[in-house]
Parts: sequence; C-alpha cells; structure tokens
Amino acid sequence: MRIAVSQGPANAATAEDNLSAIVAAAHSAADVGADLLVTPEMSATGYNIGELSGQRAEPPNGPLASAISELAQRHGIAIVYGYPEVGGDGNRNTVVLVDRDGTPLARHHKTHLFGELDHSLFVAGDHLITQTQFGGLTVGLGICYEVEFPEFARAHADAGTDLLLVPTGLMTPFDVISRILVPARAYENQMFIVYANRCGSENGLHYCGQSAIVGPDGADLARAGLGETLLVADIDPRVLLSGRRENTHLADRRTDLY
Amino acid sequence: MRIAVSQGPANAATAEDNLSAIVAAAHSAADVGADLLVTPEMSATGYNIGELSGQRAEPPNGPLASAISELAQRHGIAIVYGYPEVGGDGNRNTVVLVDRDGTPLARHHKTHLFGELDHSLFVAGDHLITQTQFGGLTVGLGICYEVEFPEFARAHADAGTDLLLVPTGLMTPFDVISRILVPARAYENQMFIVYANRCGSENGLHYCGQSAIVGPDGADLARAGLGETLLVADIDPRVLLSGRRENTHLADRRTDLY
Repeated sequence: MRIAVSQGPANAATAEDNLSAIVAAAHSAADVGADLLVTPEMSATGYNIGELSGQRAEPPNGPLASAISELAQRHGIAIVYGYPEVGGDGNRNTVVLVDRDGTPLARHHKTHLFGELDHSLFVAGDHLITQTQFGGLTVGLGICYEVEFPEFARAHADAGTDLLLVPTGLMTPFDVISRILVPARAYENQMFIVYANRCGSENGLHYCGQSAIVGPDGADLARAGLGETLLVADIDPRVLLSGRRENTHLADRRTDLY
Repeated sequence: MRIAVSQGPANAATAEDNLSAIVAAAHSAADVGADLLVTPEMSATGYNIGELSGQRAEPPNGPLASAISELAQRHGIAIVYGYPEVGGDGNRNTVVLVDRDGTPLARHHKTHLFGELDHSLFVAGDHLITQTQFGGLTVGLGICYEVEFPEFARAHADAGTDLLLVPTGLMTPFDVISRILVPARAYENQMFIVYANRCGSENGLHYCGQSAIVGPDGADLARAGLGETLLVADIDPRVLLSGRRENTHLADRRTDLY
C-alpha cells in the first residue's frame, strides 16, 4: 500500500485555502500512485480559527463531505480529512476516511481534547476505537493528542489495528511527540502509524511539521521537515507478521499486575 | 542529585570481574561527586552465563550484599546493582538500591521475564511497583524488559515515582528501546529515567550500550555510546514541577474509556 501525507497548508486565510490544499494534494498523491492520502487535523477548514470553526462546522453529509467524496472518486484515491462536525450537543473534532469510490468508510471524533483550543471549540467524542478495513489491513483512526496516550494506542493494538492514521495539529515546542512518542507507539504496539501534521503559523500558533510514516520497528519510513510537503512511503504488511513474531510485548504483559 | 551510570563491563570472564567493575565504578563515581551509581542488570554476577547464574545466586544477605554494602559505605555513595537472588521456588532476577550508609533501601524482582534467557534462569516477581525515598525524590526500580511496557511506567507514575532506575541487559538489534521507548516513557509519565546497560559481548550475546539519563521532557541529559563508560548527569527536581504543569497527560486520560 502506498501512502501519501499532505503536510500543510502553511498559509490558509480562507476556508477555500484549506480545501484547495487537499485538492492539490490529492492530485499529486494520485500522480505518484498513492492508494491513500492522509491530511492533518482540521485540514478542510483550519484549526486555530476561533469562532470561524463553528461557522465552518457542518453535518456528516454537508458540502465538504460532498467535495471530498467527489475528489476521491475523481482521482481514485482514499482520503482522510478533518473538520468540525455539527452534533446535537456541540461540534466535534472529527476525521473521516473516504474510500476511493467516495464512500465514507470510518468517522472518528476526538476523545482526548487538548487544552483551551479544543475545549473552547469542541465536545469530546466518547467512542475510543474507530476502525475499518482498507487494502487488506485493519485501519484505525486517531486525532493528535490521542496518540500521546499509551492507553489509546494499546487499545487499538488489542482491537487488531495494523495501521493507525493520525491527523494532527502539533505545535512547537512539542516536536518530541513526533520524534519520540509516535515511533514508540508504533514499536510497542507493532503497528504502522501515519502522523500527518500541519505546518507554518495559524493565528499565532506555530505548527512544527515533522509528519511521519513509521513502521512497527519504530523506524521512519518517511519523515517531513518543517514546511509544506507531500510525504510518500510504501508499507509492506508482511513486516507486521515478522515484527510480531520477534516483539511479543502484547502477549508478555503481566495483566494480572495492572 | 548527581547520578552516575556504569556501562559495562565489556569483558567479564569470572564472577570477580563483574564485582571488580562495580568497585572501580563506585570509586570513579564518588570521585566526580555522584550521589548514586546505577549499574546494569546482573552487574554483580554476569547475565548470559547459563548455569553459572544459579551457582552465583545468593540470598539477600549473602557475600555480594556485604561487599556492595561495604563499598557504598567506603565511598559514601548509593549503589544500584543486580544479581540472581535465591528464593524458595527459584531464583529471581533482582536489583537492589543500597543507601550510602550501606543499608538496602529497596529490592525489586523482575516481573516481566524476557525470552528464553530469563525464563531458563528465573521465576518472575509478582510485585509490580518497588519504590523508596532517596534524595528527596520518590525513586522506583525496574529491570530491562519491564520499562518497555507502557503499563509498567504508567503504574509508576500513578504511584508517584519521580525517578525510575532501570538496570538493563539490552542486546542488538533492540537499540530502539534505548533511543525511543525510554525517552517516551520519561516524557509521557513526566519522570526522570536512568537506563543502565551492559556493553560488549557475553557468551554470544551482543549488548548495545547506549545507556541514558533522560529528563521528563524526553530529552537526554546524558547518553553513552557502545563501549565501557561512566555516564554522569545532574538532575534538577524543579523541572518535574514545571514539566507536569505543562504536560497534563495523567490528568487528561479518559479512564472512562479504558
């Protein structure tokens, strides 16, 4: 499976700037033969945009959903994107995986809200594990802060996730998350992790880039720098089998002690 | 608090070679003003030594305990060392923290045994959290494979551990543990971790060195290469307070979901 990550946009003044970046990335990702494009947290609308977030929020079947569905079909590529989803009791920080035929395969609401930014805009999701089947793998969805919790990734491992897709909006000075915690999650749970970050500045928040595609051995298959880029890597599901034979942490847990 | 780590010995043909390395390290560590010397897993006896391990095993108050106690008193330095401890139902992979006055402060038996090496020599301990007070900090003890489990370090964080001391016998090709997992545990749990590894070869096992003293920000305070060395770093407890204010993962867990 060939995976592309769109790191960006570095500048997005309007709602259309965000969607345009996804459109351009889908075109580029399809050009290089990617099966799946993963874009950052709130990629379709912008993240640190104050009350504009509420104005750009929409229900699951809104105009953004239609636009991404049409984009996926046009390029024959699956797309993960993020947006604020309208709910009865408030908006939710949401990511959706749309199949290459335009069908939404999975929809995840962020369960672990981060700081004032998330808490001022969103209510938390209460469903921890969101999974679907894609390309012969069990694919899980996470958002940003969630992957920092070992409990979250462990629950995915126990639920059989092979590939965890994590749109994020990681800001300075927290690049330790991308460099250290994400590879640790991949290794300790023997899964692939795709960590797709924003970059540049957004109303005073400085995103730190460093998106990464990491293998179950904890090594980078691809890693971005600080600026806009399209990251591409092929993942080979066979290394899951060999890695899991060698690294037996899940079976070796002392669940009688914790 | 000044901490020294003795990485080694690279060659230890006899039981005395192992103890001699601790004696030399205690001398050097005291010379540089260290308060605490941490030595690797099975530092007092050797690790991958087959049935010699059983022959060198001893009870808590055996000759090795006396020798280390005398050494700690002579240099006025606390010492963590490892050895096979005789128990009623088998030997245990054990580390002991001896205070600078020669008194044993804490004794930990490895709860997560690693592979054929551990399982052929030891029975597992059943007490997960071993702690004591030292230098104004709550100090925890772990051994090698244990720190690879997020559940182990998390339980230490919940129990209030500030400084986790982990003698280890990490072999190639698992250096991802030292480079990635240990810093991840320090950051995600907001604690200092001292990871003291063997180096060189021991009956066909190749240890990968890379001992480290890591801060709660996940950054190395000191990191060894592949060979014998004495690693020294000062840890400042005040960064625990500032780090825990900034990184609120423990409080932000969704314990209702896992």
